[in-house]
Amino acid sequence: MSDARVASLQSAVPTLRVLNDPADLAHYGGDWTRRWTPAPLAIALPASIEEVQATMRWAYAQGVAVVPSGGRTGLSGGAVAANGELVLSLQRMNRVLGFTAADRLLTVEAGIALEAVHEAAREHGLQYPVDFAARGSCSIGGNIATNAGGIRVVRYGNTREWVAGVKLVTATGELLDLNRGLVKNSSGYDLRHLVVASEGTLGVIVEATLRLTDPPPDTRVMLLALPSFDVLMEVFQALRARLPLEAFEFFTDRALHHTVAHGAQAPFESVYLYYVVAEFASAGEAGEVALLSAFEYCMEQGWVEDGVISHGDAQAAALWRLREGITESLAPHVPYKNDVSVRVSEMPAFLAHTQALLAAEYPQFDVVWFGHIGDGNLHINVLKPSDMANADFVIECERVTKLLAAALAEHGGSISAEHGIGLVKKPYLGSTRSAEEIAVMRGIRRALDPAGILNPGKLFD
Amino acid sequence: MSDARVASLQSAVPTLRVLNDPADLAHYGGDWTRRWTPAPLAIALPASIEEVQATMRWAYAQGVAVVPSGGRTGLSGGAVAANGELVLSLQRMNRVLGFTAADRLLTVEAGIALEAVHEAAREHGLQYPVDFAARGSCSIGGNIATNAGGIRVVRYGNTREWVAGVKLVTATGELLDLNRGLVKNSSGYDLRHLVVASEGTLGVIVEATLRLTDPPPDTRVMLLALPSFDVLMEVFQALRARLPLEAFEFFTDRALHHTVAHGAQAPFESVYLYYVVAEFASAGEAGEVALLSAFEYCMEQGWVEDGVISHGDAQAAALWRLREGITESLAPHVPYKNDVSVRVSEMPAFLAHTQALLAAEYPQFDVVWFGHIGDGNLHINVLKPSDMANADFVIECERVTKLLAAALAEHGGSISAEHGIGLVKKPYLGSTRSAEEIAVMRGIRRALDPAGILNPGKLFD
Repeated sequence: MSDARVASLQSAVPTLRVLNDPADLAHYGGDWTRRWTPAPLAIALPASIEEVQATMRWAYAQGVAVVPSGGRTGLSGGAVAANGELVLSLQRMNRVLGFTAADRLLTVEAGIALEAVHEAAREHGLQYPVDFAARGSCSIGGNIATNAGGIRVVRYGNTREWVAGVKLVTATGELLDLNRGLVKNSSGYDLRHLVVASEGTLGVIVEATLRLTDPPPDTRVMLLALPSFDVLMEVFQALRARLPLEAFEFFTDRALHHTVAHGAQAPFESVYLYYVVAEFASAGEAGEVALLSAFEYCMEQGWVEDGVISHGDAQAAALWRLREGITESLAPHVPYKNDVSVRVSEMPAFLAHTQALLAAEYPQFDVVWFGHIGDGNLHINVLKPSDMANADFVIECERVTKLLAAALAEHGGSISAEHGIGLVKKPYLGSTRSAEEIAVMRGIRRALDPAGILNPGKLFD
Repeated sequence: MSDARVASLQSAVPTLRVLNDPADLAHYGGDWTRRWTPAPLAIALPASIEEVQATMRWAYAQGVAVVPSGGRTGLSGGAVAANGELVLSLQRMNRVLGFTAADRLLTVEAGIALEAVHEAAREHGLQYPVDFAARGSCSIGGNIATNAGGIRVVRYGNTREWVAGVKLVTATGELLDLNRGLVKNSSGYDLRHLVVASEGTLGVIVEATLRLTDPPPDTRVMLLALPSFDVLMEVFQALRARLPLEAFEFFTDRALHHTVAHGAQAPFESVYLYYVVAEFASAGEAGEVALLSAFEYCMEQGWVEDGVISHGDAQAAALWRLREGITESLAPHVPYKNDVSVRVSEMPAFLAHTQALLAAEYPQFDVVWFGHIGDGNLHINVLKPSDMANADFVIECERVTKLLAAALAEHGGSISAEHGIGLVKKPYLGSTRSAEEIAVMRGIRRALDPAGILNPGKLFD
């Protein structure tokens, strides 16, 4: 604790756990982007809302920048502390605080892992339906701060839809208790919704009240092999019209190559260009008939070259692993991640445009496509050649991202569907939000954080 | 056009239709509250976004206050122009602009009536599920500006859930195109959600892109007579657990008295204290069995004294009329309206508290209760005795609303569930939103409307 500011914080909030060993600074100062060198001032690990408030009051008085921090699984650098900021980690605030059956509301501290929320919902015979591969590490506070999406958005929507209340500690240390679980509340601006996707720039999310829903139905999982990108939307529309869709995910042969190299089992003897993992609520014999008939319809149209339908949980899990294992299998290849979206109706035109763009601009790179096609959301991962320096690779990727951003603007899309803007997408925010919108956002940020101490440099300057 | 400012507006926007006959000023200057004397400067009736922008640029330059105006069916005075404001009516901007089947998105001008949106959705084999009695007169822009709820919230949520995009003209005449129909878009603050429930204080809603959903299922309607308020929540929980609930509305004997006096047919020979109109998706024979068994369960518990289940659309409509006719039947009695909500789990305690409060404070008045119990939303209408002056009546009602607001604060509720704050509930906003929240809202309002020309005096000062 050599820094005088650390001593001052510890003296202002004597009960606060503060870390500043080099290993802790490195551990808590970065996220999954791994592009910036962590260099925080110190790590604050409050155990209560009061400690968060006291920490923010100190930071406000001292003019110290604060980076709110959850599970640090972010992919846009939103939780990176590379400029002497105080990292305010919610890691120790991870309890379930309460459940009311009549409301189906679960109240949790912000640092709780998504998976623990899933478990708590299950204990009450209900479901928290937002789900994605980082479930064991990411925190609910981070999910809210980025409006996390994932693999069930096509059926259940994004995190936003499940937030019935949020407690937020502001830049000046005040506690706002927003919406408080009410179903109907037309009493002025819904600041709860302003907090969702604000990436730690408007306050520190300390508590959330989450809506739960009916437990998930029994499901069947289907893996399909497709001959071309062109039929992907046709298959989606056909299956959506015929079956109760719980998920619809696609990936390319390059993605399958990496997951199989990483230990997954190849699903078919032949290799195909495109794959879909789809999950459906199964409803007895009638459901089975509908499932087979939908599958046959797609085969007859020539849209599907091969397919398998799960029998039993183990097979379903094995099929899902082909999709969910992608991110992990790519990690050693230092992927540059694009996370873009357009309207579903705009997807065919955008896919064609983007495929041509990337084929022309990235011939030398391994490009892995996957995503949530039913939400209009594509993940385009560019892998770094092993003999290329990371800095050169990023420069080259950013050149192409500029072109991709222009394509998105043309097709009415978004440069970030679900990862957030953070540091990584900040240069391209103008492709998605107009200058007037950014000016309004800047005014709102200033209204809540006049001294500019909350996650400075993230989202926009 | 005697006022120089009206001439200046007309000269600044030559194509703009401007009215300022006394009859027009009276017609467009008020809403359903009828408590304030309309006194607008003039009425602007733009036919395009460009005319709205030009009008706002003129108003900003001249420092003229503007009241955005839809169907003027509001119940909180949000569209009242009693202080020389320019009423900016969206009435002529009422077209359907487009539909995309793959997205299930309908784009409309803000002045379109809710009923016309229902019809457009039906034409595409889909449904826009927000619904309430004012459907023929209210506009989508007004629905969004108050986050309108209505009779299907228990199944489909509020207006907010169905808004995929909003175009907003700001105080300075800039056009913001917010979210543009995207399912996933984590690119900074979701200003679309900030606009919902902003009551014309952040800009003029000129266009909306609405999500549509599957067409409504076949349904059956049930009318139940209940012996006490205490069993109301029991009946709700029992039916919700057993049946696919599409609506669950309650009203009291006093409400039935007024609708019958207004021409509806009494449903039972006997008179009971409390009634429920519930609607369920009906699914063939199994559904019929579930419906009867749920009804019998409630009878066996002693929760229900009498009941009827609709056979055919005519009977269903007749049962609904008992609930939907209430507001119209009360109108001649100059009701003072309370529109409050709590969490569903808090409803029993709040009901007991409020019943005792009103019995003690309003013994001399006819108090009519109805509402959306499954959303935690009560409408408490106090009727003016015919021999009482309106001003005295309002003073007396406001005295009791202060007590009600204190009860709401105690039970974690909201002073406005779905009508909005406007002028009527402004004195009580502090019962629902903390001083810190109101300060944040004030800062946001100032950021978007620095000159304070948008609906001044509404929501908060």
